Amino acid sequence: MPPSTAPVSFDDLRAFIERSFISCGMPGPDAQKASALMARADLIGQDGHGVFRLPQYIRRIRAGGMNVAAQIRTVSDRAATALIDGDNGLGHLVMRHATELAMEKAATTGVAWVGARNSNHAGPGSLYAAMPAQKDMIGIYIAVGSANHMPPWGGSEMLLSTNPIAVAIPSANRSPIILDMATTVAAYGKVKTAAQRGQQMPEGWMIDKEGRPLTDPQRASEGFLLPIGGAKGYGLSLIFGILAGTLNGAAFGRDVIDFNADSSTTTNTGHMIIALDIKAFTDPETFKSGIDRIWEQMKSSPRLPGFDEIRLPGERLARVTQERSENGIPLPQTLRKALNDLADELAIAPL
Amino acid sequence: MPPSTAPVSFDDLRAFIERSFISCGMPGPDAQKASALMARADLIGQDGHGVFRLPQYIRRIRAGGMNVAAQIRTVSDRAATALIDGDNGLGHLVMRHATELAMEKAATTGVAWVGARNSNHAGPGSLYAAMPAQKDMIGIYIAVGSANHMPPWGGSEMLLSTNPIAVAIPSANRSPIILDMATTVAAYGKVKTAAQRGQQMPEGWMIDKEGRPLTDPQRASEGFLLPIGGAKGYGLSLIFGILAGTLNGAAFGRDVIDFNADSSTTTNTGHMIIALDIKAFTDPETFKSGIDRIWEQMKSSPRLPGFDEIRLPGERLARVTQERSENGIPLPQTLRKALNDLADELAIAPL
Repeated sequence: MPPSTAPVSFDDLRAFIERSFISCGMPGPDAQKASALMARADLIGQDGHGVFRLPQYIRRIRAGGMNVAAQIRTVSDRAATALIDGDNGLGHLVMRHATELAMEKAATTGVAWVGARNSNHAGPGSLYAAMPAQKDMIGIYIAVGSANHMPPWGGSEMLLSTNPIAVAIPSANRSPIILDMATTVAAYGKVKTAAQRGQQMPEGWMIDKEGRPLTDPQRASEGFLLPIGGAKGYGLSLIFGILAGTLNGAAFGRDVIDFNADSSTTTNTGHMIIALDIKAFTDPETFKSGIDRIWEQMKSSPRLPGFDEIRLPGERLARVTQERSENGIPLPQTLRKALNDLADELAIAPL
Repeated sequence: MPPSTAPVSFDDLRAFIERSFISCGMPGPDAQKASALMARADLIGQDGHGVFRLPQYIRRIRAGGMNVAAQIRTVSDRAATALIDGDNGLGHLVMRHATELAMEKAATTGVAWVGARNSNHAGPGSLYAAMPAQKDMIGIYIAVGSANHMPPWGGSEMLLSTNPIAVAIPSANRSPIILDMATTVAAYGKVKTAAQRGQQMPEGWMIDKEGRPLTDPQRASEGFLLPIGGAKGYGLSLIFGILAGTLNGAAFGRDVIDFNADSSTTTNTGHMIIALDIKAFTDPETFKSGIDRIWEQMKSSPRLPGFDEIRLPGERLARVTQERSENGIPLPQTLRKALNDLADELAIAPL
């Protein structure tokens, strides 16, 4: 019987992820938290960063590359900063902890910056940036990507990742502004999607080792991703790697493990989160009304030929979240099958 | 007699700027601080942001658009944050104050974020980001640009500026990593320079109101700057404008005054600075050695055809600073003449 193609509810998806983790020995409360964040990634439309990653995470746990019973601890602590050690646990648990800590500190000090090391892939950064935005705070998340796909500008050794940034800013009557972007023109997931679909990539996404445009995604391993704005995106990726990696004692540069190719070596992934309390600057209602006005200014700009609308960062996310909350989360048949196979392997109830 | 073409020393340039400000009524200590920062912009090679701007600043002071005797005050204050009001003073004075305040707070709390409103153009952001880096801290500066040159992605109304970011990170035996970049592919100054030199612009810098590439810089007023990475750079510019502008009660979007075209209206320019104390995370010597290693990894990457070297952000700045410290600062003849004319106008000794 081919796998169902019906959309799955957030609750069913979350419960499936939860029982997968529990079957591998993750403590119940951690499995609950991790599954809620992973299913939320699918709910908000970040398909490449949600349940799609589950088989890989389980493979890593079973290969001894990730600690299913991690004890997160604080390595250093000041009034407005902390460095936490994730004990090689799932990134979602580490960054949820880091973000809660940052929000708690920022409520007193106005701003807090929490770094993490010995972590792992944490899904989309917008999950964490959006947490402060629900409490009249601004969230800023930066991570070292989990595989190097980009050389320094002018080079050909892949020393940099897509090192992303996510920022979330609350509004009054609009959805929050949520920017979640790689410092490369295309995230590597988009290259994989093009390959799966048999599509060519536009020029500007990748180049080959001679510096020529590479547009065939089947040849992706022969080339590298290009940074946004040339040397500028290289600079951003470098800076983000230092802030989220080097500063925390986490991997950056040649120390980054390709988590797609290697499931057993500890990745020592680094991330960081800033929580900024809007009340420390102005009345939050005044600020959020100001964001609504900015939103309306952008939306009402005359449009260039070929554009149907002007979008704000986070607008699509809000639309998809609403739609999937009502109608469920669509899962491609290949993913559905991979999850059913995983259920068999773990001897748990399928989706 | 045509103006001299000999390079000018930092000290002579600083003294000239100082007496220009003093002749306009700026208090001596402020004129000293402002002139040191402005001359430093030239020393580090940020030619479009140093003494080149002096005639414009003086014009604004004389037109009543900038307060020469500004009293900077703190509007709100928490352990790790502050919002300051620049009293419509020169941006250099406001942001020097803000950065010192952020460093003082961060020394205790680990990190501090200081926002400013009612400020003015402050020259290159690297001036302020680099101050914490001299004290084993990381500096991050963001500003709302002083004129809108970019629409939201897909739009044609210029609601956004080049909203730049500058980040400075200290190293052990290398120069500090200093990234100082606009969120547009080209800063507007580069367009002006191309126009002065009679050169065409490459495709990708600007488009016209129909969305077609615009390569003639003489027609710059008919088009707009493009963001780095398309919608991504638009997102960054928007976020930076909110963090440096809206959050501080400073101008953003339709409220931004074009300071080139209008010298009398208060600009209410917004900026922000973060100071992060490396000691709150790790031993600064360990960290700085790590930055040296990152530096060496990047430099030693094999190169793509057509590239002579791989550069780190801040490497050129360090090289130019060294060279100009030894040999003086070259000033184009047209600028030299403009400064001599200014000296006549202000009845002060010329350069």
